[in-house]
Amino acid sequence: MTRFKLTLEYDGTRYAGWQLQKNDRSIQGELLQAAFKVFGTQQVEVYGAGRTDAGVHARGQVAHLAVDDSRITPEQLRMRMNDELSHDINILSVEKAHPKFHARHDAKNRSYVYQISKRRDAFGKKYVWWVRDTLDIAAMRAAAGRLVGFHDFRSFGDVEKEDQSTLVDLTRLDIREDADRIYIHISGSHFLWKMVRRIAGVLVEVGRGRMSADTVEGFLKNPSREPAKFTAPPSGLFLERVEY
Amino acid sequence: MTRFKLTLEYDGTRYAGWQLQKNDRSIQGELLQAAFKVFGTQQVEVYGAGRTDAGVHARGQVAHLAVDDSRITPEQLRMRMNDELSHDINILSVEKAHPKFHARHDAKNRSYVYQISKRRDAFGKKYVWWVRDTLDIAAMRAAAGRLVGFHDFRSFGDVEKEDQSTLVDLTRLDIREDADRIYIHISGSHFLWKMVRRIAGVLVEVGRGRMSADTVEGFLKNPSREPAKFTAPPSGLFLERVEY
Repeated sequence: MTRFKLTLEYDGTRYAGWQLQKNDRSIQGELLQAAFKVFGTQQVEVYGAGRTDAGVHARGQVAHLAVDDSRITPEQLRMRMNDELSHDINILSVEKAHPKFHARHDAKNRSYVYQISKRRDAFGKKYVWWVRDTLDIAAMRAAAGRLVGFHDFRSFGDVEKEDQSTLVDLTRLDIREDADRIYIHISGSHFLWKMVRRIAGVLVEVGRGRMSADTVEGFLKNPSREPAKFTAPPSGLFLERVEY
Repeated sequence: MTRFKLTLEYDGTRYAGWQLQKNDRSIQGELLQAAFKVFGTQQVEVYGAGRTDAGVHARGQVAHLAVDDSRITPEQLRMRMNDELSHDINILSVEKAHPKFHARHDAKNRSYVYQISKRRDAFGKKYVWWVRDTLDIAAMRAAAGRLVGFHDFRSFGDVEKEDQSTLVDLTRLDIREDADRIYIHISGSHFLWKMVRRIAGVLVEVGRGRMSADTVEGFLKNPSREPAKFTAPPSGLFLERVEY
């Protein structure tokens, strides 16, 4: 089997998320289907670094693709796959990978951006969360600072597997803004299911003045179901980059 | 009748264009319908500065709205209209206007941007024209220079009314680019129907090396049906600004 590393972008609006679904369109499913057409075989493996949810987008998802074809070049693979894919999934680059490279297991760091709009936006419905309240950015930054570091984030995420660790090294949590938008930049070793959207939701709650930084920090010490109530909508979330 | 000046943005994808249609959704029609709901009367007039085509977008369209209501404030009008409008039409600002102000007749200058993508773009289908060929930007700029000024643009536009002048003062035609995109900035006194898209299409033809700047200049001197063959798709076009 030849193994390739794919970097891709997609508009997640029309999909049920990354992961292959029986009765729904998924990004992984679309990639597998495109690969079947290109290679004429079902013997293809595609794994992604981050299993984005329905409606979540990617500007730099990474996946590996393993197939029994030693002749196709990375650039041929990129072009032929793109010819089979819908307009809203686009392979940006392809390179040959080590035979044991695994997009998910080998990833060292993942970066996301969560986009909030301060105003109604005719172009934004699928790409931002419109928050009508004026947010206190300084308060959000202070609370964000409490979350950076190596902590137990079980209060922020749903655990997918029994043996998954809830200890996450959150390496970055910055908030930037311009006239119309607020961007939450978040990077870490890995993320629990819905963790990024719950951190975004909790920070917005802080920005509204309804939650303190102490409360946020408390979620790291004592397991709580509170953050789940503030899960931000998927539309604002973009997987930006995966590092190895 | 009280008269307001509205500045608005819209994603034109789902609409048959600005102009009111009998059996199709239009921006003007949606604004009229929203106004009927807000004011409870059919006695409302809405006119736009530029009659954008189906699929064409606006970041700064201007319209006037005349209604028999002297109590509503501009900000109330903006908020109540937006509450009735679909997510892809958004009134950015409202101000009271002179009783004789006419958004279309009084406009002195209109500015458009035409967006071209150099690459496949998962987020671009509705907002760019993807041109696969590498374009010669210097050649496009040279040809663009020949079009700036006061000329007869009949070769570039379809005339809507017999008495409409085909003499247009084209005040700006700049081409900018970044890593992934090319932006054609175009401003003028007014534009004939499809004129902006035909100028964009002809400039791309020049960028491909298939048409010379002399040929382009010739279209101003001798009426020709040639530019119509190169009408660029509506998706890449944005009405940016209207000046009075």
